[in-house]
Amino acid sequence: MFFTVKKKDTRSRARAGVIQTAHGNIETPIFMPVGTLGGVKGVLTRDLEATIKARIILGNTYHLYLRPGTGVISKAGGLHRFNGWNKPILTDSGGFQVFSLSHRRKIKPEEGVWFQSHIDGSRHLFSPEKVMDIQRQIGADIVMAFDECTPYPCEHEYAEKSMNITQHWLQRCIDRFDSTTGHYGYEQTLFPIVQGSVYRDLRIRAAEFAKSLNRDGYAIGGVSVGEPVELMYEMTDICCQILPETAPRYLMGVGTPVNILENIALGVDMFDCVMPTRNGRNGMIFTWNGILNMRNEKWKDDFSPICARSSLMEDKVHSKAFLRHLYVSGEMLGPMLGSLHNLNFYLELVTVARQKIMEGTFLEWKQNIVPVLGNKM
Amino acid sequence: MFFTVKKKDTRSRARAGVIQTAHGNIETPIFMPVGTLGGVKGVLTRDLEATIKARIILGNTYHLYLRPGTGVISKAGGLHRFNGWNKPILTDSGGFQVFSLSHRRKIKPEEGVWFQSHIDGSRHLFSPEKVMDIQRQIGADIVMAFDECTPYPCEHEYAEKSMNITQHWLQRCIDRFDSTTGHYGYEQTLFPIVQGSVYRDLRIRAAEFAKSLNRDGYAIGGVSVGEPVELMYEMTDICCQILPETAPRYLMGVGTPVNILENIALGVDMFDCVMPTRNGRNGMIFTWNGILNMRNEKWKDDFSPICARSSLMEDKVHSKAFLRHLYVSGEMLGPMLGSLHNLNFYLELVTVARQKIMEGTFLEWKQNIVPVLGNKM
Repeated sequence: MFFTVKKKDTRSRARAGVIQTAHGNIETPIFMPVGTLGGVKGVLTRDLEATIKARIILGNTYHLYLRPGTGVISKAGGLHRFNGWNKPILTDSGGFQVFSLSHRRKIKPEEGVWFQSHIDGSRHLFSPEKVMDIQRQIGADIVMAFDECTPYPCEHEYAEKSMNITQHWLQRCIDRFDSTTGHYGYEQTLFPIVQGSVYRDLRIRAAEFAKSLNRDGYAIGGVSVGEPVELMYEMTDICCQILPETAPRYLMGVGTPVNILENIALGVDMFDCVMPTRNGRNGMIFTWNGILNMRNEKWKDDFSPICARSSLMEDKVHSKAFLRHLYVSGEMLGPMLGSLHNLNFYLELVTVARQKIMEGTFLEWKQNIVPVLGNKM
Repeated sequence: MFFTVKKKDTRSRARAGVIQTAHGNIETPIFMPVGTLGGVKGVLTRDLEATIKARIILGNTYHLYLRPGTGVISKAGGLHRFNGWNKPILTDSGGFQVFSLSHRRKIKPEEGVWFQSHIDGSRHLFSPEKVMDIQRQIGADIVMAFDECTPYPCEHEYAEKSMNITQHWLQRCIDRFDSTTGHYGYEQTLFPIVQGSVYRDLRIRAAEFAKSLNRDGYAIGGVSVGEPVELMYEMTDICCQILPETAPRYLMGVGTPVNILENIALGVDMFDCVMPTRNGRNGMIFTWNGILNMRNEKWKDDFSPICARSSLMEDKVHSKAFLRHLYVSGEMLGPMLGSLHNLNFYLELVTVARQKIMEGTFLEWKQNIVPVLGNKM
């Protein structure tokens, strides 16, 4: 994997770059649609590629390990072959899901985490080594280290202890990853994850440790878990000041359109979040004019296009009234259109952000657009 | 509306034709995807038009009357404007839904049918005149007469009484329809519906009556309601022998791929059915090799394409194993792909049937393909 910075903003830490992977190039900053089980909920792969122009999607190790299972994915020849998506894929480590979804989890620092499947209650162990092996079988271009994502709020003592375990696991992940090779004939790369909750001292230590490992890219985890937005930006800021400028920085699980622009300004290159698809399914859509609750009575006979400024054909062909009708009537077309629209908007957002960085007008543009994007209608 | 027969099969009553409407031409035989509430469940309008190449869709008067309501549709400028579908639309009369979905319905021959909404229990009256007015407001290119669709089994006495009411209502529908004009500047046309349950004498009387009204097209209703398939074909056969050759014949709510081919052979030109979308949502897909239950364990590691002979990109890009995984995991992409696939298959089926009619090889082709299409895997 190679990363090239094409342009640095002079008035913020925003940068425009290109990540080269075995499955193609990714222009940054980028948003990665979440394909939990291999497919992005509500969006055909064809639309993901040709309509939304997604460049990389994210798969969830925890979910894919349970269904369809690594046996099936291996037999298919890896996730790209299994899901029919031939562009880059990133997989998370399963750490987040083990702690948020599974039952009766038990952390044993030397072993890993024992947990029960949220589907059938079956018992499993995720160790740093096992998670590397699973991600080798899945065959993602970018694989993530196994970590504990601390909740918010979280005492300093617990956060420090957890960070120490995460760093211990990180070293084991690297040892395993570097002593194995990809199963499918192309290169994979491993990103460390910087944890440390909302504590400056812990974030600094974790970022310095990650940096010392000299990897192709780095992730910042444990943000957007309920903390005030100012703390999120503060933690991103600290981490981005330490993590090397020569590698992409991935802020995990973030966020709203405003969050994304603010974090781009702090030096983040990669984002993922379930928000565009999850909120899209529920009737909340993100537009250049702000956030629209499409179930609202006010759209009942508003026959203006969903979003006239959008590049998406559906946003121009269909009216707000029709979209509202679909949601209110429980038609699956509503969630489909909402997901397609939101992902298209997120990809448009990072594409325009990149243009503005290239043109040298990013900060001014961001300051003008942020108050509008945050509007709720 | 004009109908031209382009070619008659010499060994069956199958024919290839063209229906001209204000919203474009329809080559027949045709299958009409069902867009109950204005949109076809699980399929984007763009895919309906460009991918599946649907030429006409069906809307449900009962559903659209309740949600979004004729007020909203009128204000939008008709259903084509409201749902963004600019090709022909046919609306059913609501008769079938009033009898199958609504609560506490009460037939009063002179008034119509009082019923309670299945959504909120509110009371409504559908009279022949009101149903014509609603369909004028919806603005479908082809509107259907208000009828009672008798259940199966059904005593001769009830079937005859019901048919008499349907014919009385039909005359009232025609009177109202012919004394009004379209609201949106284009022509609409009204099809009578031939009822009569499974009784030859009633079907003959009903078909003769319909024929005497000299309309642009005719529908056969009250089949595919649970009767043996031989009775369905017998009733279609009787009706098609009587209904004029110069007008399109629409068999309502039919059916499986085999049903469609058999009825084409009997002289039917138009079909609609929820089967491709409903079964597609549930994991049953129709292919040139037969019917596949995609939830079956046997597809777990079958990485062959969903359907190699299909014209649909998704059928070639995605494997049976991936599609099974989506259904089993409860991902909405499964129902989406299943619906898209099935509708594409139904449209392919009638398109190939038309080619075979044009080439003069329809009957031979049908006899070879029917046993294969009926296979269950």
